[in-house]
Amino acid sequence: MSRDEPVPRDPEDSPRDKLLFTPGPLTTSATVKQAMLHDVGSRDEGFLAVVREVRERLLATYGLAQTRGWEVVLLQGSGTYAVEAALSSLVPRDGKVLALVNGAYGQRIVKMCAAHGIPCEVLRFEENVPVDPAAVDRSLAADRALTHVALVHVETTTGVLNPLNEVGRVVFEHRRAFFVDAMSSFGALPLSVEEAHVHCLAASANKCLEGIPGVAFVLARREVLEASKGCARTLTLDLHAQWRGLEDDGQFRFTPPTQVVLALRQALLEHEAEGGVAGRGARYRANHEVLRGGMEALGFQAYVPRENSSPIIATFLYPRHPRWDFGDFYVRLSQRGFLIYPGKLTRTECFRLGNIGRLYTDDVKALLHAIRAVLTEMGVETPRHG
Amino acid sequence: MSRDEPVPRDPEDSPRDKLLFTPGPLTTSATVKQAMLHDVGSRDEGFLAVVREVRERLLATYGLAQTRGWEVVLLQGSGTYAVEAALSSLVPRDGKVLALVNGAYGQRIVKMCAAHGIPCEVLRFEENVPVDPAAVDRSLAADRALTHVALVHVETTTGVLNPLNEVGRVVFEHRRAFFVDAMSSFGALPLSVEEAHVHCLAASANKCLEGIPGVAFVLARREVLEASKGCARTLTLDLHAQWRGLEDDGQFRFTPPTQVVLALRQALLEHEAEGGVAGRGARYRANHEVLRGGMEALGFQAYVPRENSSPIIATFLYPRHPRWDFGDFYVRLSQRGFLIYPGKLTRTECFRLGNIGRLYTDDVKALLHAIRAVLTEMGVETPRHG
Repeated sequence: MSRDEPVPRDPEDSPRDKLLFTPGPLTTSATVKQAMLHDVGSRDEGFLAVVREVRERLLATYGLAQTRGWEVVLLQGSGTYAVEAALSSLVPRDGKVLALVNGAYGQRIVKMCAAHGIPCEVLRFEENVPVDPAAVDRSLAADRALTHVALVHVETTTGVLNPLNEVGRVVFEHRRAFFVDAMSSFGALPLSVEEAHVHCLAASANKCLEGIPGVAFVLARREVLEASKGCARTLTLDLHAQWRGLEDDGQFRFTPPTQVVLALRQALLEHEAEGGVAGRGARYRANHEVLRGGMEALGFQAYVPRENSSPIIATFLYPRHPRWDFGDFYVRLSQRGFLIYPGKLTRTECFRLGNIGRLYTDDVKALLHAIRAVLTEMGVETPRHG
Repeated sequence: MSRDEPVPRDPEDSPRDKLLFTPGPLTTSATVKQAMLHDVGSRDEGFLAVVREVRERLLATYGLAQTRGWEVVLLQGSGTYAVEAALSSLVPRDGKVLALVNGAYGQRIVKMCAAHGIPCEVLRFEENVPVDPAAVDRSLAADRALTHVALVHVETTTGVLNPLNEVGRVVFEHRRAFFVDAMSSFGALPLSVEEAHVHCLAASANKCLEGIPGVAFVLARREVLEASKGCARTLTLDLHAQWRGLEDDGQFRFTPPTQVVLALRQALLEHEAEGGVAGRGARYRANHEVLRGGMEALGFQAYVPRENSSPIIATFLYPRHPRWDFGDFYVRLSQRGFLIYPGKLTRTECFRLGNIGRLYTDDVKALLHAIRAVLTEMGVETPRHG
């Protein structure tokens, strides 16, 4: 075993990975993974240049830049860490959050507020309908103590697309701060921080940017970060301190996942090469159309109406068929090289199919072909409902 | 750009990485990095089996197992996240921490307590001497409110090795809980949780285990974890909830860094193949002897006396020579393929040389040769002190 030979294994040695029809971690490009075949010094200029480039490219994804008053803070951990860092660092001690909940990720924000003792009012909606801006308006009018409104842009629980601009306008009219969990939309859906009056948004490397999990990030207006000094309730998730570290000497305060950051740089290059948000979004929409149409043709029923659905992930109800068994369905698809995703609804039995990652319509068609074959094997010829 | 070809780049294309004489992220083996060339489903049985294996191997590193009452909790993020998770999840609301500080990592524990409003008494020592167990005894005798004692096993600030067993015995005699930051010792230094009466220790993948940064872990007695239910002060760093997630369905609660976990499995296999803690420690001791002896022969003065030093990293004082310039020294060594590490002392100008990672005595000799050449170039023929 020697360090010196970078001995890539013979591709023949390792069977092809299964395709991930999940909301992430995703199927990524070979070149994104290969970017991790290096050891770099976490405080060396070579790596710091990559960190600077990644931060600039993340802002540029939506046409933002430091010169336009926007900042980006990279954070070790999963996307949820970035959401918790933003909430626990930016909401002041006398703050109060209005959490808009139509799925598990909205509910997670409520749990975070509880963990930190941050007062939180919850506005709940059905899991297959978007957040209603008029209800937000009423809540904000009724409670002057509310300082922040938190919205999940695409609720990964179901794939529901929430009305970012409409909610943002209401929040702006009430002069409150608008915090967006953009985990499943960043990089693939249009998003104007001006139009939506966003103060801060959190997202992750391993969703629509098609990077590797292990690093997340928060984009925020500079004055929002500046105002948060000393507000954090933790050391590692202190967004202001992390930002100052990155600005003052270009370094992460604590050991960064160097290889994962190298992969994110490569992922951002490939995102740009595909045409940025527009190009990436177009591929996902094509995937989603083929997926949803194909599943409906097979007799599956989508949980979210087409008009409320994002082109990221789709939720399908369990067929009412005596031979239907999700565990069996999952294993048979896995044996054919396709990994799908269980459901996460509170009251309805369902499963999910993601269509993001380095997947193309041909991959979706291959999945649909496998699903048809598996249903036949299982004796679930027509999963039609009702 | 196609997903299907795992096209490893021609090794000739990419120049050899610089050798990292740092405390981590480290130079890792090619096979550890290559383990990351896969996309796996984070909730799929294939990955969950890897998570189980990693957890078992982490315990087995020190002869522990669940059947012996020990548990291990993997956590996304850097090692500092694991330290903060342990402190903020295990110290109850009426708890009080005695922090033993002889460097920046001890001081970091004090900062964490402050962030969470955990009462904390600080016992400080000079940065080049180990923590004194007799002083710990006096502090514990004087303050009955102290419930937990926190010690950094190897203080990476300097390389000082703290007397784990002696401090642990004192803590045990006073019937307090003993928390150990084993970041820079785990996997290379002997450690008996029984002899040292450890309740809980935190460490990371990317130190002596020679894995990739992005995942950390806490080892704890089961009853310590069980008693901590509902105690956590955050959502993502809730150690009890993370443990229950891993136990109940084998999954991380939030997106794990899948590739980094695959690399950790490979790193643990290579750790075992090298002879475990004994084998890894022997290689590091050999590296350290060559490094320290060679540096002293060149005229450098070590900051920590030999008897207080761990075989992980060494701190050297800046030479008192008019032509000495650390920035120049660093860049010239970097150009020759060697990355070294700045100092972190509060009052003394110094730099550090780590000797962990996939480095051998020949690599250390090559570094020493480069240092000699660079000193000559700089006109610092004899960096002798005094």
